[in-house]
Amino acid sequence: MTSFMSPIKYEHEKMYLLDQTLLPGQEVYLEIQNKEDLWEAIYKLKVRGAPAIGVAAACGIYVCTRDMAAASFEEFCHAFHEVKEYLASARPTAVNLFWALNRMEAKLLSLKEKAKTETWERAQIHITQELKEEARKIYQEDVDSCYAMGKYGLSLLKPGMGILTHCNAGTIATAKYGTCLSPLYLGQEQGYHFKVFADETRPLLQGARLTSWELDKAGIDVTLICDNMASIVMKNGWIDAVVVGCDRMAANGDGANKIGTSGVAILAKEYGIPFYMFVPTSTIDLNTPAGKDIHIEQRKGEEVYKMWYEKPMAPEGVKTYNPAFDVTDAKYITAVITEKGIMYPPYDINLPKVFEV
Amino acid sequence: MTSFMSPIKYEHEKMYLLDQTLLPGQEVYLEIQNKEDLWEAIYKLKVRGAPAIGVAAACGIYVCTRDMAAASFEEFCHAFHEVKEYLASARPTAVNLFWALNRMEAKLLSLKEKAKTETWERAQIHITQELKEEARKIYQEDVDSCYAMGKYGLSLLKPGMGILTHCNAGTIATAKYGTCLSPLYLGQEQGYHFKVFADETRPLLQGARLTSWELDKAGIDVTLICDNMASIVMKNGWIDAVVVGCDRMAANGDGANKIGTSGVAILAKEYGIPFYMFVPTSTIDLNTPAGKDIHIEQRKGEEVYKMWYEKPMAPEGVKTYNPAFDVTDAKYITAVITEKGIMYPPYDINLPKVFEV
Repeated sequence: MTSFMSPIKYEHEKMYLLDQTLLPGQEVYLEIQNKEDLWEAIYKLKVRGAPAIGVAAACGIYVCTRDMAAASFEEFCHAFHEVKEYLASARPTAVNLFWALNRMEAKLLSLKEKAKTETWERAQIHITQELKEEARKIYQEDVDSCYAMGKYGLSLLKPGMGILTHCNAGTIATAKYGTCLSPLYLGQEQGYHFKVFADETRPLLQGARLTSWELDKAGIDVTLICDNMASIVMKNGWIDAVVVGCDRMAANGDGANKIGTSGVAILAKEYGIPFYMFVPTSTIDLNTPAGKDIHIEQRKGEEVYKMWYEKPMAPEGVKTYNPAFDVTDAKYITAVITEKGIMYPPYDINLPKVFEV
Repeated sequence: MTSFMSPIKYEHEKMYLLDQTLLPGQEVYLEIQNKEDLWEAIYKLKVRGAPAIGVAAACGIYVCTRDMAAASFEEFCHAFHEVKEYLASARPTAVNLFWALNRMEAKLLSLKEKAKTETWERAQIHITQELKEEARKIYQEDVDSCYAMGKYGLSLLKPGMGILTHCNAGTIATAKYGTCLSPLYLGQEQGYHFKVFADETRPLLQGARLTSWELDKAGIDVTLICDNMASIVMKNGWIDAVVVGCDRMAANGDGANKIGTSGVAILAKEYGIPFYMFVPTSTIDLNTPAGKDIHIEQRKGEEVYKMWYEKPMAPEGVKTYNPAFDVTDAKYITAVITEKGIMYPPYDINLPKVFEV
């Protein structure tokens, strides 16, 4: 049985988050007791990965509000909203964070009429039970979505294949299984014996710190390489498929993902290797026409020449360019794997169909 | 006037080597007083870059042998040979090291008849003078060769161009100017105002530590990027040409260079950007038919996940693959720039012509 690291645990009515900033050196689960704990965990990237942040926020806002003193439904809603706004401020660009918090608040507001039918004291007990159930649903839906992507993805792969991945779209970035790593876990359970190559993924090293760690934990054969070695491992004939995640996909199938993804896609095309992008439907934005319309976050240069090192690795004050993402053109993407099925080009025609299922 | 950092200095009869392992933090020139100093400098990569190693060895073996006590020409030759063998052991894969040491020894042996015409005491003075002159010639030939490559390379570039480079084939890897960076220095002197992007070049970070440092010193506009950002800067339209060095070129034009070069070449082709490889003729090996015949050095994984970092960046014992070089297929190389001129495809036909000039 494959062992899965989950980044979020809820046991004996207590919530824990895996502190991903300490990986791979230490595996520490932090107990989340109040909104300050959760805010800090999100702000400091102790929990990361869009789906995992959403699930942590849903579970967390339940935990942080379940014991709130409130004299009425309105008072409870008001206090809940304040906690929500506070948590949302932890990472203003994380769409899944707002989505999950809004869904929890919508659930709360939907209980207004029901709350009137009993004393507030009893109503509060029922309301917090319903919020707990909603958080559980959000968690389970993410597990199911990742599992479905894994199943579809696995149908494209064969036992013994060499697989290259970039960054970390793994189990610790989601509730369970991951997105692009999900087929590797499902394959592992079925004895597929994949040979996985993980790009270290500069500058933040998610491939080295997180992907090689979680695959290794699951007993999957993983080899760590520098990003610039993707070409030679492909040329060596060691790679049969590339699997990557996606941060946002435009209506034409252009997909933004961790910096470096577009280069891997071009290499894969040149070497005749299929390039699969794993895209939860929540990540497809039909209102964005093309990749050029996606804003690319720029980050500070210290991540490149200073952050991880014992000493600065470039001259003081050197100019840097440090985009967090790049856009992979649709023409390089062999297939888009969603939780609802596999989509093939032409994406401008086929992507909208996924929302009709 | 552009300022050039030379990795080798000979001033007031003393030899100094720039300690490149301390860059970019400290600029320290080490005095080379004896063969142990030089052996350590080569072994510990304080001097690096094939041409620079050759020049350092030539100058160094003169310095280390000029004051040797010897009672006859034969005794001197015997002692000289021992020093030569000792120095050659510092880096057994460095072809230029052996080439330079052999040339110095050949010079010495050529003086046998002349030595007989005078007392050994006088002969030794003349011999060491001749060896000094031979070392100076080796130095000057490298300067001339790099300057010629720069001139030919510059003829392919236009003022204001964006240039991407990988690793360090710069002034500190040669006697002066560098190979692929030579046109950038010559262009700088003529007001070309290039905008240079330097790949950091994992795992050993030569681009961050050395290239961005030496270009910055010369006042050239340089931006440091991670290797996986080459695709986005090309896509942004910021790159008009790629310039790289070469460690060894096969007869068919396949060129081995620092790991990651082949990926950059494929991206350049995809984005329609010319890819120029700077190849001193000493690096062209017509006896090696193709790139697949070039042995690729494998290095230890610690360079990838541990060497530079404050703490290990991957799980203890993680598998790694760490090739020092990769081979760029001839089909991706727009032109080969040598000190004798520019060669274009088909390389299997045109490369041999360079030796006929």
